[in-house]
Amino acid sequence: MLNGERLIAKPYRWAMVGGGRTGNVGYKHRIGALRDNTAFELVAGAFDIDAERGKDFGTNLGVDPSRCYADYKTMFAEEAKREDGIQVVSIATPNGTHYEITKAALEAGLHVICEKPLFFEEEEGIEIKKLAEEKGKIIGVTYGFSGHQLLLQMRQMVENGDLGEIRMLDLRYTHGFNATDTESANASQKWRVDPKVAGKAFVLGDISTHTYYMSRLICPELKVKELLCDRQSFIKSRAPMEDNAYVLMHYENGAVGRMWASSVNAGCMDGHRIRIIGSKASVEFSDHQPNELLYEIQGQPPQKLIRGMSYLYDECNADERLGALHTEGLGESWANIYLKFAVAMDAKDRGDEETLKNLVYPGIDAGIEGIHWINTCVKSADEGAVWVKF
Amino acid sequence: MLNGERLIAKPYRWAMVGGGRTGNVGYKHRIGALRDNTAFELVAGAFDIDAERGKDFGTNLGVDPSRCYADYKTMFAEEAKREDGIQVVSIATPNGTHYEITKAALEAGLHVICEKPLFFEEEEGIEIKKLAEEKGKIIGVTYGFSGHQLLLQMRQMVENGDLGEIRMLDLRYTHGFNATDTESANASQKWRVDPKVAGKAFVLGDISTHTYYMSRLICPELKVKELLCDRQSFIKSRAPMEDNAYVLMHYENGAVGRMWASSVNAGCMDGHRIRIIGSKASVEFSDHQPNELLYEIQGQPPQKLIRGMSYLYDECNADERLGALHTEGLGESWANIYLKFAVAMDAKDRGDEETLKNLVYPGIDAGIEGIHWINTCVKSADEGAVWVKF
Amino acid sequence: MLNGERLIAKPYRWAMVGGGRTGNVGYKHRIGALRDNTAFELVAGAFDIDAERGKDFGTNLGVDPSRCYADYKTMFAEEAKREDGIQVVSIATPNGTHYEITKAALEAGLHVICEKPLFFEEEEGIEIKKLAEEKGKIIGVTYGFSGHQLLLQMRQMVENGDLGEIRMLDLRYTHGFNATDTESANASQKWRVDPKVAGKAFVLGDISTHTYYMSRLICPELKVKELLCDRQSFIKSRAPMEDNAYVLMHYENGAVGRMWASSVNAGCMDGHRIRIIGSKASVEFSDHQPNELLYEIQGQPPQKLIRGMSYLYDECNADERLGALHTEGLGESWANIYLKFAVAMDAKDRGDEETLKNLVYPGIDAGIEGIHWINTCVKSADEGAVWVKF
Amino acid sequence: MLNGERLIAKPYRWAMVGGGRTGNVGYKHRIGALRDNTAFELVAGAFDIDAERGKDFGTNLGVDPSRCYADYKTMFAEEAKREDGIQVVSIATPNGTHYEITKAALEAGLHVICEKPLFFEEEEGIEIKKLAEEKGKIIGVTYGFSGHQLLLQMRQMVENGDLGEIRMLDLRYTHGFNATDTESANASQKWRVDPKVAGKAFVLGDISTHTYYMSRLICPELKVKELLCDRQSFIKSRAPMEDNAYVLMHYENGAVGRMWASSVNAGCMDGHRIRIIGSKASVEFSDHQPNELLYEIQGQPPQKLIRGMSYLYDECNADERLGALHTEGLGESWANIYLKFAVAMDAKDRGDEETLKNLVYPGIDAGIEGIHWINTCVKSADEGAVWVKF
Repeated sequence: MLNGERLIAKPYRWAMVGGGRTGNVGYKHRIGALRDNTAFELVAGAFDIDAERGKDFGTNLGVDPSRCYADYKTMFAEEAKREDGIQVVSIATPNGTHYEITKAALEAGLHVICEKPLFFEEEEGIEIKKLAEEKGKIIGVTYGFSGHQLLLQMRQMVENGDLGEIRMLDLRYTHGFNATDTESANASQKWRVDPKVAGKAFVLGDISTHTYYMSRLICPELKVKELLCDRQSFIKSRAPMEDNAYVLMHYENGAVGRMWASSVNAGCMDGHRIRIIGSKASVEFSDHQPNELLYEIQGQPPQKLIRGMSYLYDECNADERLGALHTEGLGESWANIYLKFAVAMDAKDRGDEETLKNLVYPGIDAGIEGIHWINTCVKSADEGAVWVKF
Repeated sequence: MLNGERLIAKPYRWAMVGGGRTGNVGYKHRIGALRDNTAFELVAGAFDIDAERGKDFGTNLGVDPSRCYADYKTMFAEEAKREDGIQVVSIATPNGTHYEITKAALEAGLHVICEKPLFFEEEEGIEIKKLAEEKGKIIGVTYGFSGHQLLLQMRQMVENGDLGEIRMLDLRYTHGFNATDTESANASQKWRVDPKVAGKAFVLGDISTHTYYMSRLICPELKVKELLCDRQSFIKSRAPMEDNAYVLMHYENGAVGRMWASSVNAGCMDGHRIRIIGSKASVEFSDHQPNELLYEIQGQPPQKLIRGMSYLYDECNADERLGALHTEGLGESWANIYLKFAVAMDAKDRGDEETLKNLVYPGIDAGIEGIHWINTCVKSADEGAVWVKF
Repeated sequence: MLNGERLIAKPYRWAMVGGGRTGNVGYKHRIGALRDNTAFELVAGAFDIDAERGKDFGTNLGVDPSRCYADYKTMFAEEAKREDGIQVVSIATPNGTHYEITKAALEAGLHVICEKPLFFEEEEGIEIKKLAEEKGKIIGVTYGFSGHQLLLQMRQMVENGDLGEIRMLDLRYTHGFNATDTESANASQKWRVDPKVAGKAFVLGDISTHTYYMSRLICPELKVKELLCDRQSFIKSRAPMEDNAYVLMHYENGAVGRMWASSVNAGCMDGHRIRIIGSKASVEFSDHQPNELLYEIQGQPPQKLIRGMSYLYDECNADERLGALHTEGLGESWANIYLKFAVAMDAKDRGDEETLKNLVYPGIDAGIEGIHWINTCVKSADEGAVWVKF
Repeated sequence: MLNGERLIAKPYRWAMVGGGRTGNVGYKHRIGALRDNTAFELVAGAFDIDAERGKDFGTNLGVDPSRCYADYKTMFAEEAKREDGIQVVSIATPNGTHYEITKAALEAGLHVICEKPLFFEEEEGIEIKKLAEEKGKIIGVTYGFSGHQLLLQMRQMVENGDLGEIRMLDLRYTHGFNATDTESANASQKWRVDPKVAGKAFVLGDISTHTYYMSRLICPELKVKELLCDRQSFIKSRAPMEDNAYVLMHYENGAVGRMWASSVNAGCMDGHRIRIIGSKASVEFSDHQPNELLYEIQGQPPQKLIRGMSYLYDECNADERLGALHTEGLGESWANIYLKFAVAMDAKDRGDEETLKNLVYPGIDAGIEGIHWINTCVKSADEGAVWVKF
């Protein structure tokens, strides 16, 4: 059980690109990174495309005004000159800028933590992976929901055969906030439906990459063999960017699956649902109530597994913070993955490959696979919702 | 609100073929038909393939032993000789016998109530429809879940535009009772996975026809244009009869949909889920708790609509029996459709076409469309899970 | 598992007093009694204080018009003259008339089924019990919710020690339909707040007697030693008849309990909640979803026990009708208790004391204890919400 | 909406007494205080009764080893000598020490944040209140669940009359972790059932004070006039310290209420339930799912109010951090109250009485009323569960 004690010798000096006052995402990075003040300390930032606003914001967070920069290039250059310069940067900007900022950061000798979807093309991912290896740096991808520790319970249940042979994955991440075409509904989504900024996809990239990664976290042995994607733009002006997508999957072991990603599921308030179905039992997670799992053994009473209880696997309870009956939420999920990023960086910096090998966190491979997921879905959809190899 | 008073002048003299002691389905027909003793009276039967057991059973139900017959042919012949002979027969036998019994019943001058799926081939349905018209008889199909009155609330909400334009139908009917291949799991399912007896499909026919009909009941204006079906036999010995199937649908108006039918969703205990998603709001039904609907208007608090309350549409409350807070279940659902069968027969017999036109119940067209659904799904699946015209 | 086959040789000839067209309660009696047509047949009635309306109503139910009587006295007298006269009568009239009708029925040689609360005074109950014994007749009391078979699962769990030593009973039966003082809210309640018609209590009698009986059904060994009742009339015009009551209980074995009865719990739509807490585990029932129990073993995952599953006790599944996944509701609950009334009458008539001894149903003792419950609560409340011996 | 920007000019220099490695409570204080690093910074501590372990622990949290003290007296003395000495201290030690540490802290010129129950006797509270006023310091009491912002939604709904006139408060805080008498169940509870360390009560003090304060937060105008408490020690060795207690309340305005506090509610995993019932509607909170409220208007469909949605009152959304659909938990609740402590201290230090007057947080009065609650309950129970003036 975590209680805020340090897992690494010293906090990393950390900066952000983006994540300023006008959006929500930056706060999630900060509560993740700074949870216990033993893994990261925020010392610099290029928080905003509006430099003044960014400086005001950073100062309000406690960053030295002189280290609130107008843009990431200046930040990387200036910080490189300092003895106490930044060691790691988080990128929370629109998708289309991830690649160039990541590349610049690695070249500036920084570890990188980047929003999903990582880049637009797999080739970019492969290139960056190579660069990171050369530079000896970690890339972390903020699949922010994947830190809920009950997902690790599911992973362990799958590994230990509690469910029997895995037959189906039923995956869903939907909401309805873009159901209508009003200005307010679209304001914060504007760039997300602009292919130049957001890439080839809207909800497939913005939403389903999370769920896809979570399914891989739970079932690391299950590989998609082929898939079929049917996507729609119910608000016509969004086309070809989809606001709804259905995917069918065939896995290599004979399992099958479905994914539903949507921002037009009107009124839906329980976003993620992940159900893993085996020959003996099923287990289901919803991020609407991340403190419990539904565990259904065929022929037995359905059970609720409650976060923090001693009957859970050690791998799950290792990330426990508050204790059973004390609800954790998305903040703890982000804190859990940021803490693992720090542990990974520290191991990398110390050359501790053993730790790295055993650490489960969303890194560059998860980022690349996410790109592959999106692009394969789009390919299938654009060819008329047909089966394509994964 | 119904209180058991008669809706027709006199109960119909009613018989059953099948539905004997060794299965569960007959009891559902009987509690449906005999709910208030004003619509049907059970006067004869060929309840069992084992004539003695059938006679013992019928006698125990209160049927005159002399009218417990060894088989349906004898029953139709003998009853035809009586002044007080049967007027209507329910068929609750394995699928492969429905067509011939229905035909014989019509030719014996009887109204027919038949289990789903109605027949194997649409041509049979069309032929029987023609014969029923010639004979002036009603065919009722026992989509037994479709009598839950909150489905009529959904229908009215769709018609009145409460949800906005309909965009998606998310349909599911799954359980896990066939997840394992044990003898006990298979016993009562044996004939269901024998194509000669059950037809071309297992769960598509046994399960998804219910849900498909319910979706048509709720959204009568929405017509499937094309669909894609991916089916699996997780227990190999069942092949080619599927124990799991995914279907994607495109509707003529641009809406899309999904169906999931499964008997290997291990541990699942909340079978039906039907979610209708419009541009403004969604509404969702589960037969696990048929006394409430989830109504989610985008941007407003999710609501539960509770059976029996005065804020529901009159079309829904017309079928109300017990009053709000007093749970109804599957028995009331069957009673509601059987009552409508009786009203339809009575109207037919009286030549009251006005009543017939306005009465909503699963008749021959719903039966034929169910066959079409199954056969189109199987066609798509057998061609490699490709899109086929509906 | 019940499937409608007869449990007694021949249905009882049955009549009703009250239960006519203008209320809801009669329909519940009829669906209970007539569920399978093997236990009762409705042959006569004095359904309504308005004789013509009652005759019209009875005729519509299928009763011979000549056996639709103007009042119960005429009915008992006339039926006594027939060879095929009634054998049992159900009384569904306002509380204040129960005693005289029951007495007349017994004296007319009938078995009696009576609405709760049985009478106003225990002495009346004791007198009637003696009379029933003399006459060799059964008195059944329609605690209509007590037929949900999962209550028998709870009873068996308690008996078998699954919960450990019983420590607490948390009992609730509340709704909000009388929260406001509008005419419509009060119409059907008018007589219920008139002490001359309803007795000394409103919700204590109308509501909490159900829950009290159900707690006794589950925990037959637990006897209340003393209790304290605090009652309120939030709508002043109802005073002294309470629309809300809290009760604390001390049991003889050291267990404690609470009861909350209310018709002013605004908006509440899940009436009954019964939680039995032992030293090892708890089990909880709500009639809002009578198809499942919450079973919570301390230190283990909470479970849902689902109606109809083979892991339930035989004593519970003996009353099963529709099969797991197929919802049962209040109709089945009434059918279960009416069926037991028939079995009890039949055993009584045959002198089969063994059957009677083992049969669990709400009889005269449950009726008397219900009166004692109400009157002791009222006594405590009227003395200032103090502890009184039970 | 909060995004981590500073609300006060500079973080307070903060220390802890207690809250070390061997318990859970300290982590909650730290995640509360340090959430955004703009309200508090942890600079010193006397974390543990074992000085070495405390120093090791503090160092691991990032505290300068030289400021990890062996005991609070040393800390107050040494820190007073520093220019950058501590300004505020949190007390997370067993109950019996709160009074002396608080007094010493105030005399050392510190603001104080203290665990509940504050002290044993009201007189102590009154004395400390006077001392705090003299010293110009704030006392905050960590009713850690009271920071869930949906409680402020409830408060506003009550104030605005959405529920009508308040009639009932149904309060519950129960769990089952002390249901059994095993060593492991008792280990961390040992001091809690020792009157010398814990005071006169176990669950009344440890648990129900939270819920009582939350009820006062929601309904500030409702004052208890008299109450009756019935307490039990189901594990005999705990007597006279109760592991279960029932309380009935009469409020000055005619409302009534119930409280149930228990640590022997076997298997219960949804601790808090607070239902406020008015003449028109009810609203209900459970800390098991603090992201939603059940809102039930009589005669309308029950609603779920979801955290973060714009239809909530501004007073509620002012504390919003993560945005709708993104779950918050107990960590955010603690962060919210700690932030308000900081704002209160800052206002006090600046002499800004206007801010102080309008700020809603659990201060010294809430602490004193908590003592009064416990002691009045114990008095009632010890006199035989009788009504006593509050």
